[in-house]
Amino acid sequence: MTNWQRIPGGVTAPKGYRAAGMRAGLKPSGLPDLALIVSDVPAIAAGVFTTSQVRAACVDYCRQRLQAKSTAQAILCNAGQANAATGAQGWATVLEQAQIVSQSLEISADAVLVASTGVIGKQIPIEKIRAAVPELKTLLSETGSESASQAIMTTDLVPKTIALEAKLGDQTIRVGGIAKGSGMIHPNMATMLAFVTCDAAVSPHLWQEMVSQANDNSFNQITVDGDTSTNDSLIALANGQSRTPAITEPGPAADLLAGMLTEVCAYLAKSIARDGEGATCLLEVEVSGASDGAAARQVARTIAGSMLFKSAVFGRDPNWGRIAAAAGRAGVFFDQENLQIQLGDFLLMQRGQPLNYDKAAANAYLTHQAQLSNQGGQSVEHPVLVKVSIGQGPGTGRAWGCDLSYDYVKINAEYTT
Amino acid sequence: MTNWQRIPGGVTAPKGYRAAGMRAGLKPSGLPDLALIVSDVPAIAAGVFTTSQVRAACVDYCRQRLQAKSTAQAILCNAGQANAATGAQGWATVLEQAQIVSQSLEISADAVLVASTGVIGKQIPIEKIRAAVPELKTLLSETGSESASQAIMTTDLVPKTIALEAKLGDQTIRVGGIAKGSGMIHPNMATMLAFVTCDAAVSPHLWQEMVSQANDNSFNQITVDGDTSTNDSLIALANGQSRTPAITEPGPAADLLAGMLTEVCAYLAKSIARDGEGATCLLEVEVSGASDGAAARQVARTIAGSMLFKSAVFGRDPNWGRIAAAAGRAGVFFDQENLQIQLGDFLLMQRGQPLNYDKAAANAYLTHQAQLSNQGGQSVEHPVLVKVSIGQGPGTGRAWGCDLSYDYVKINAEYTT
Repeated sequence: MTNWQRIPGGVTAPKGYRAAGMRAGLKPSGLPDLALIVSDVPAIAAGVFTTSQVRAACVDYCRQRLQAKSTAQAILCNAGQANAATGAQGWATVLEQAQIVSQSLEISADAVLVASTGVIGKQIPIEKIRAAVPELKTLLSETGSESASQAIMTTDLVPKTIALEAKLGDQTIRVGGIAKGSGMIHPNMATMLAFVTCDAAVSPHLWQEMVSQANDNSFNQITVDGDTSTNDSLIALANGQSRTPAITEPGPAADLLAGMLTEVCAYLAKSIARDGEGATCLLEVEVSGASDGAAARQVARTIAGSMLFKSAVFGRDPNWGRIAAAAGRAGVFFDQENLQIQLGDFLLMQRGQPLNYDKAAANAYLTHQAQLSNQGGQSVEHPVLVKVSIGQGPGTGRAWGCDLSYDYVKINAEYTT
Repeated sequence: MTNWQRIPGGVTAPKGYRAAGMRAGLKPSGLPDLALIVSDVPAIAAGVFTTSQVRAACVDYCRQRLQAKSTAQAILCNAGQANAATGAQGWATVLEQAQIVSQSLEISADAVLVASTGVIGKQIPIEKIRAAVPELKTLLSETGSESASQAIMTTDLVPKTIALEAKLGDQTIRVGGIAKGSGMIHPNMATMLAFVTCDAAVSPHLWQEMVSQANDNSFNQITVDGDTSTNDSLIALANGQSRTPAITEPGPAADLLAGMLTEVCAYLAKSIARDGEGATCLLEVEVSGASDGAAARQVARTIAGSMLFKSAVFGRDPNWGRIAAAAGRAGVFFDQENLQIQLGDFLLMQRGQPLNYDKAAANAYLTHQAQLSNQGGQSVEHPVLVKVSIGQGPGTGRAWGCDLSYDYVKINAEYTT
């Protein structure tokens, strides 16, 4: 099924992209806070953005931009200030950000997309952007993805990056991505920034469709705390520099590209959930037997987001009652007599009835998965796996989350003070 | 407006009620865990129950009972086991619980309502109920409300109780209530047990309407962690023992009774939110300017339930950006240019724009409210008050929550292990 392989390089793995990150002095911490991703040529651009009524200026700007024109060539992203709840001045700032990049790169202003992350209600000090961009331009490189991925972090502990390559005929296509998350991670859409690059050639309509679908099965299915942010943005560029034939309609080539895109998004989504504030492990919830995929995803999301279940996982407590309770309140009808719950290899409930199981072994499973998922840095390869079936329907869906620890509270109680 | 006054006595303040609580050995802790509330005569009975697909046997039982017959005379409530996800045996248990009480009190079995709270998926040891009820009957008294309110607690720190009395003509009517909450507190319906007694005479249809409406403006508007339980039940009895004229249609008498009922429910709801697991203070969110009350309540609930905002309050951090973000994702349309946010007396945002305010003073306000709300035990009289306006509509609504502390995680990570 997987006809692709992992390669290094993130957003600069695909042909014809350069990226860079640097310190522009926007974060009080003095850490890198300004990133730029540039395609050598105008790329087909698609995006998915937060559904919140309170949106950052950059989100409204990108939405308008992508509605007017289906190509873009550069993405500027700052951390430190979200440019949300910043009114008319915030809108002027995003226009100026685009202008600064356009002048520096000598491309048209409407070829520049802008993303921001950070504190809500603070204006971005635009003079620092103006001062930094010329240097940022000189730092752009074909190996700059890592530096860019670090500059978009806020309370993230690790940068999130992936790239895949696959054969299309006897040529090669590549898809790469970077993301930031941590806190405010929840569906609609999963409250994060993700930038994806691709060197395949694809029609604008098909690309937007692929991006929306990949988003539904990845970023929209992660939850850290149920809070959707003002700034959620997934922006994906396809610049055709692989010189492969243009993908303009459904078929094997489109399936391959959509598969790679979904894999890139799912990996980044899992990395975001795994790095949820204070998290010690990744939760993966698989739901089957629903009437359709949307219903299954809804139940999966509700379980992955249950504070009680997340607290239980932090306590390494196989408290399946909280899984059942979360499934029951998801807003999806099912007959509780059909409910089946499995944790790892442990069948905990069948036909709505609790089963006898080895509680000490189930506890050890939770402890073991958490240990594995912390070996050699954060890993998304060893999630705590919950499988739930709610009936006989064909709908299946997955969601990802993390446990709820003391550190979540600590981080979020002390964020702005 | 308030034509009533507070009196002691809880559910036994109204005429013609007795109650008791005792240790039946259902809780591992050995604390009281079985409560009984009895009316001298059959009372008009109304209820509101959890909307979860995974419901306790006692919830299905009470729903069926109240659909078949609009009167009841006794409520048995146990803590320790929820009798949820317990299948056919759980159903047999609830029937037997009713049978045991009916035989002991010499009333018909269908006059007995049953509620449970505790661990999901564990069977109630029915022999302990059978052994305890005869003694519980001997303990019934007209001052037994306090003992009953203690026996329904799980992780609650304090019992929750209130009673009101008012003049109806030259006679007196009384409404009393007890409740338990803590954890899994959220709308639909607010995941708790509440029992309300009243000595007014009222028609069944009007009483159910009053109870549903009081619930919408109280228990459905509190949130501790977004988890709705399998066992949420509000049961309200009206036994007519005040000998006041029967209230059978809208008018001043109905308004008085509905007002008292809503006040009792709101007080209990706030007490539950204030006693949320690990909470250090009560949050009260008032939303105005919405298209209707339901929209306002929805926005208020979303803000009161935001993990990020709750964490900020625990950190005494006036982080209004998180209030704006929560309002924006509530699923209610509004123009962000109309958003206004006030914390206590501090106006933080107007027409969608952040204002300059004295952050140190706002921080001191949060600290002060938390101190006041912990003086002399838990108080609900000093909430952290958030006022949000989202437009020019007539809809207003309130919701209550609590801050999110380390102790929430601690309590819930260690609950069953």
